[in-house]
Amino acid sequence: MPTTIPEPIAWSPDRTIRILDQTLLPEEERYLELRTLEELAEAIRSLRVRGAPLIGIAAAMGVVMAAGREGQVDGAVAAQEELSNIREACARLGATRPTAVNLQWALDRMARRAESAVRQGHGLYDALLEEAKAIWDEDRRMCDRIGELGAPLIPHRATVCTVCNAGALATGGIGTALAPVYVQHRARGEPHVIVPETRPLLQGSRLTAWELQRAGVPVTLIADSMVASRLRLGDVRAVFVGADRIARNGDVANKIGTYGLALAARAHQIPFYVAAPSSTVDVATPNGAAIPIEERSPEEIMAWRGQRSAPNGVGVWNPAFDVTPAELITAIVTDRGVVAPKDVARIID
Amino acid sequence: MPTTIPEPIAWSPDRTIRILDQTLLPEEERYLELRTLEELAEAIRSLRVRGAPLIGIAAAMGVVMAAGREGQVDGAVAAQEELSNIREACARLGATRPTAVNLQWALDRMARRAESAVRQGHGLYDALLEEAKAIWDEDRRMCDRIGELGAPLIPHRATVCTVCNAGALATGGIGTALAPVYVQHRARGEPHVIVPETRPLLQGSRLTAWELQRAGVPVTLIADSMVASRLRLGDVRAVFVGADRIARNGDVANKIGTYGLALAARAHQIPFYVAAPSSTVDVATPNGAAIPIEERSPEEIMAWRGQRSAPNGVGVWNPAFDVTPAELITAIVTDRGVVAPKDVARIID
Repeated sequence: MPTTIPEPIAWSPDRTIRILDQTLLPEEERYLELRTLEELAEAIRSLRVRGAPLIGIAAAMGVVMAAGREGQVDGAVAAQEELSNIREACARLGATRPTAVNLQWALDRMARRAESAVRQGHGLYDALLEEAKAIWDEDRRMCDRIGELGAPLIPHRATVCTVCNAGALATGGIGTALAPVYVQHRARGEPHVIVPETRPLLQGSRLTAWELQRAGVPVTLIADSMVASRLRLGDVRAVFVGADRIARNGDVANKIGTYGLALAARAHQIPFYVAAPSSTVDVATPNGAAIPIEERSPEEIMAWRGQRSAPNGVGVWNPAFDVTPAELITAIVTDRGVVAPKDVARIID
Repeated sequence: MPTTIPEPIAWSPDRTIRILDQTLLPEEERYLELRTLEELAEAIRSLRVRGAPLIGIAAAMGVVMAAGREGQVDGAVAAQEELSNIREACARLGATRPTAVNLQWALDRMARRAESAVRQGHGLYDALLEEAKAIWDEDRRMCDRIGELGAPLIPHRATVCTVCNAGALATGGIGTALAPVYVQHRARGEPHVIVPETRPLLQGSRLTAWELQRAGVPVTLIADSMVASRLRLGDVRAVFVGADRIARNGDVANKIGTYGLALAARAHQIPFYVAAPSSTVDVATPNGAAIPIEERSPEEIMAWRGQRSAPNGVGVWNPAFDVTPAELITAIVTDRGVVAPKDVARIID
């Protein structure tokens, strides 16, 4: 990974947690040292650290911090006390973003590791540090694998289009939708990426444009309304988007705007790829209609950083996600292989 | 026209020009009294008064103001001086928005009327006032006619979708795309209108949502990225958009985002109507590819009212308009009838 790709999270020298405050981007690149569990919880709640894989990693690091260096326990009573401390830390962190699947998955894994360490008389701090590092390493490898599998899908000298931020800022590695872009960029300085700003929260302009520019990838920012016209120009040869949930039949829930982008890609015969970890596939959900879509606050549409842009009292519809039907998706790129949408359940054990 | 539909322009009691400052909407509904030609020119340049039909009307009123009440001329020398004064006023107003077709058309008409009044020895002020009122009245009737012809295309208890602002704030009457909505609303309190915010300048949220809400029409505001998902919901039964130019083959240039909306309408078998005055049809332009598309400042995408949302130096593509091909358009609603796109040139003499 080139050093120019931003690192949204890191260990500080004293084993507290260093994060890039993503709410301040792109105006300011400020790193925060999080020294307490409460500081970390606040950073997750207020989206200073965001992206499903990344908040799982951050939470795991928070559990290590909660154990502290003195987490080497001797007696059985002390061990049980320490374990209960860890469980409480997990509960507090788990409450920060109740709907984030990766967050709970990472915390459950940390809690299980704490229990087995105590049971086997191993050092708690070292065991938890090892587990948190494993979670991070696995995520990084998952990103690399998606990048390797997805890169050959980008034609030479191509322009590609994405939406929202499924990049390094959302993961512990080189991202999901952007991973093939970074792998290609390392190999031959391509491709050029079209980034829709992604209203209402502007993750495209604030985060994706920022991280690609930092990494030296050529970027063109557009308003969301320009996607169809841009695809009509003829230079975009592939679309790569992330996923929040993939149903058993291959329907994909992702950031609002993905469905319109998929319709435009189909109209212009441009391949449309979803890139996501295999953990995003939810075999318990039969199809897109069964995916609940979160509707967010009207304020997100009615104002931007305190600047009001709509009349008071107007009705607003603000779904955070949409569903792209499997038939509009060319292929799904996961760490376990590139599959047709209808075959996506097969990659799950 | 219900009094609740806002009047973006009016004569003041002393025959100066009263405008609604559209740059301050929706936060503030402030009316300005424009007492000099320079004040009017500034208001047109800075989009305080906007919309192609409306700036034509405003400019015509400005010429009347330039003539002044003392515009009753006696001698031949005085008449030529007064005429040259009028021509200068036309030139100054015409330079405010050089690409607006309606503006030049209205000014040419005022200049011709001034010449004929002087030639025939009629009172210049009265002749120009009559001409300006005629321009305004014709525009109002054009809007009403589009409304009457378009209203039957809206099914009972329907939701419709529009884009940008082609409403009362852009014309001297009840608008173009919104005219059928207002006619239906008067008749039976319907329909419900979905309004995309229309980045980058947010004419949807700032202007369309405001004027519909003022008129008592039920409105739901969405981000532009939500258009396709909203059309998929099934309640939208028709789309009405305006037009900046209609080519001879029926291709339509309109606000960026119109093409993506047309693709989504086609995907969900929703009728897609363009509503525009017959003067928008440009028989000299063979098709959409021949329509020049204005590209505007990157700043519009990179910030909103001083709040920066993109990293400095990032590439931006910011076309103000897109082209919707004739085959995606169900019909074009003009003041001279509702026609299939391929037949649009037939309505022109």
